Amino acid sequence: MNQTQHLPDFAAVRAAADRIESHAVRTSLAASNTLDELAGGCVIIKPECLQRTGSFKFRGAWNCISQLDRAGCPGGVVAYSSGNHAQGVAAAAQLRGMPAAIVMPSDTPQIKKDNTRRLGAEIVEYDRGSQARDRIAAELAQDREAAMVPPFEHRHIIAGQGTATVEFLEDVKTQGVQLDQLIVPAGGGGLIAGASLAVEELSSQTKVFSAEPAGFDDHARSLAAGARVSNAGATGSICDALLSPEPGQMTFAINAARLSGGLVVSDDEVRDAMRFAFAHLKLVVEPGGCVALAAVLAGKIDCRGKSTGIILSGGNVDPSLFGQVLAAG
Amino acid sequence: MNQTQHLPDFAAVRAAADRIESHAVRTSLAASNTLDELAGGCVIIKPECLQRTGSFKFRGAWNCISQLDRAGCPGGVVAYSSGNHAQGVAAAAQLRGMPAAIVMPSDTPQIKKDNTRRLGAEIVEYDRGSQARDRIAAELAQDREAAMVPPFEHRHIIAGQGTATVEFLEDVKTQGVQLDQLIVPAGGGGLIAGASLAVEELSSQTKVFSAEPAGFDDHARSLAAGARVSNAGATGSICDALLSPEPGQMTFAINAARLSGGLVVSDDEVRDAMRFAFAHLKLVVEPGGCVALAAVLAGKIDCRGKSTGIILSGGNVDPSLFGQVLAAG
Repeated sequence: MNQTQHLPDFAAVRAAADRIESHAVRTSLAASNTLDELAGGCVIIKPECLQRTGSFKFRGAWNCISQLDRAGCPGGVVAYSSGNHAQGVAAAAQLRGMPAAIVMPSDTPQIKKDNTRRLGAEIVEYDRGSQARDRIAAELAQDREAAMVPPFEHRHIIAGQGTATVEFLEDVKTQGVQLDQLIVPAGGGGLIAGASLAVEELSSQTKVFSAEPAGFDDHARSLAAGARVSNAGATGSICDALLSPEPGQMTFAINAARLSGGLVVSDDEVRDAMRFAFAHLKLVVEPGGCVALAAVLAGKIDCRGKSTGIILSGGNVDPSLFGQVLAAG
Repeated sequence: MNQTQHLPDFAAVRAAADRIESHAVRTSLAASNTLDELAGGCVIIKPECLQRTGSFKFRGAWNCISQLDRAGCPGGVVAYSSGNHAQGVAAAAQLRGMPAAIVMPSDTPQIKKDNTRRLGAEIVEYDRGSQARDRIAAELAQDREAAMVPPFEHRHIIAGQGTATVEFLEDVKTQGVQLDQLIVPAGGGGLIAGASLAVEELSSQTKVFSAEPAGFDDHARSLAAGARVSNAGATGSICDALLSPEPGQMTFAINAARLSGGLVVSDDEVRDAMRFAFAHLKLVVEPGGCVALAAVLAGKIDCRGKSTGIILSGGNVDPSLFGQVLAAG
């Protein structure tokens, strides 16, 4: 996607907020006295696990798909994803009554296939070892005269994800709070790119940090290097939602100039955070959705005397994995 | 508590709502397309597991404790509870800077003792087999010149619990919905007594049903009999929050004339509902908190073409039990 010339601006995020208002959940802010005590400051949580389809991904998908001209894509939409983006796209396409085909690796957990099918999408499987999913998806889109909905490298997707932070900043303002810092999970960087556009306009004193799992700290290292760098491996963290190989070109063009740094947490710190969310927030948060909370709980950033915002980006976790995490606590 | 002459009315519930407004969480309504499809109608959820201390119990505790005259109870407050009421009372007392002593059976799970202590309360243990907790608590209150905060037989407690339904009815109205029926978990009956007062005033066409676990269906049977009847056993359901031996005298005086009937669910239906809340709502709900959802999912009430409200009353569940429930799915 060589579309950096079409980067979204805040006006695009604001327009997306108007567009999704009657379709997405305006997730309410959450807090915990125990968390505040542990952090030594005020921590405010935006629980996007409570969003439609269980993650923030519906926001970008709806912002993108709701703007499609049906005549231009008689075959509906195509996306590749093994997880949250798949469900976001399926739900958005279903709302518009358009067919959706999702390209998924054949070893995708059954529950994610089931969830995606329940939303009316067709699943096209491929062999993760031998085939490139983006090429399969692109060919499928061409064959079917369908529109491709990429997971993050698209101005409508980035703008849509930014609506979570627009709501966050509006709602903390209502509480009389200004965030000193905001921590956002980063995979391809779409959610945090949208967040940084919203912060720049609505709360320019707020520093924005990415949070990532160890081994997949491409944003942290890219920000330090001033250029996009890749991860060494493609697997090896429980944070399945955050295993993108490198920051997106478009997303990094937005993030490089706006982020204050990157925080990195271990899988064990993520498990601790999942257990904390279970016990104290009563929320089901998936591993990748928990990295910002993990960064606060593990002391990866100084929260003392400050107001810190964190996004819990999703809650689509298999019961067996969740049970294992609880049992290991 | 022979105080039926002092039953609360709706004005008491409204006053409680004003009193708790800046201290309790106004829990946002939740919904699920999957749930709507399964029920064949519109189901709207009030997730009180997201309330301060993880259950609705903070509402009544704060409404009661915030009205105490310090001079009349220099020793603070005393309550008996092994679970949610303990945490609600501890949190409310802590907010007022008053000492709290909670009488708990010595075999209470460690996590509930820890949570209660973290809220600044003292725990007074007793032997469940040989001692009567209400007498221990009453003696303790007298010795310490402390105020007793009963779990449901008190007008301030009932009025406080009613605030959950005031919010529920106000917020569905904002959505343009009128509830045809509302299903509320019942233990001692405080939450549903408050709910029925709120419904009578704000949404008189809404039918209110209690939900209970099998073997502890004292409300269902009492409503059918027109008089309070007791349960045969004292243990034997995973719904630990709903094991009261019989409806309260005050609460039943309110409920008998206002409820449309009682729904009864098995523990297995409760487990199904807990797994549904995990997978589709991303909420941690304790067994007793899930009985209304279980009643809908198990088809214990006709929801087809109707608008049904359900309260998820709490989320304080041990990780080991929660893991077992997930693993059995």
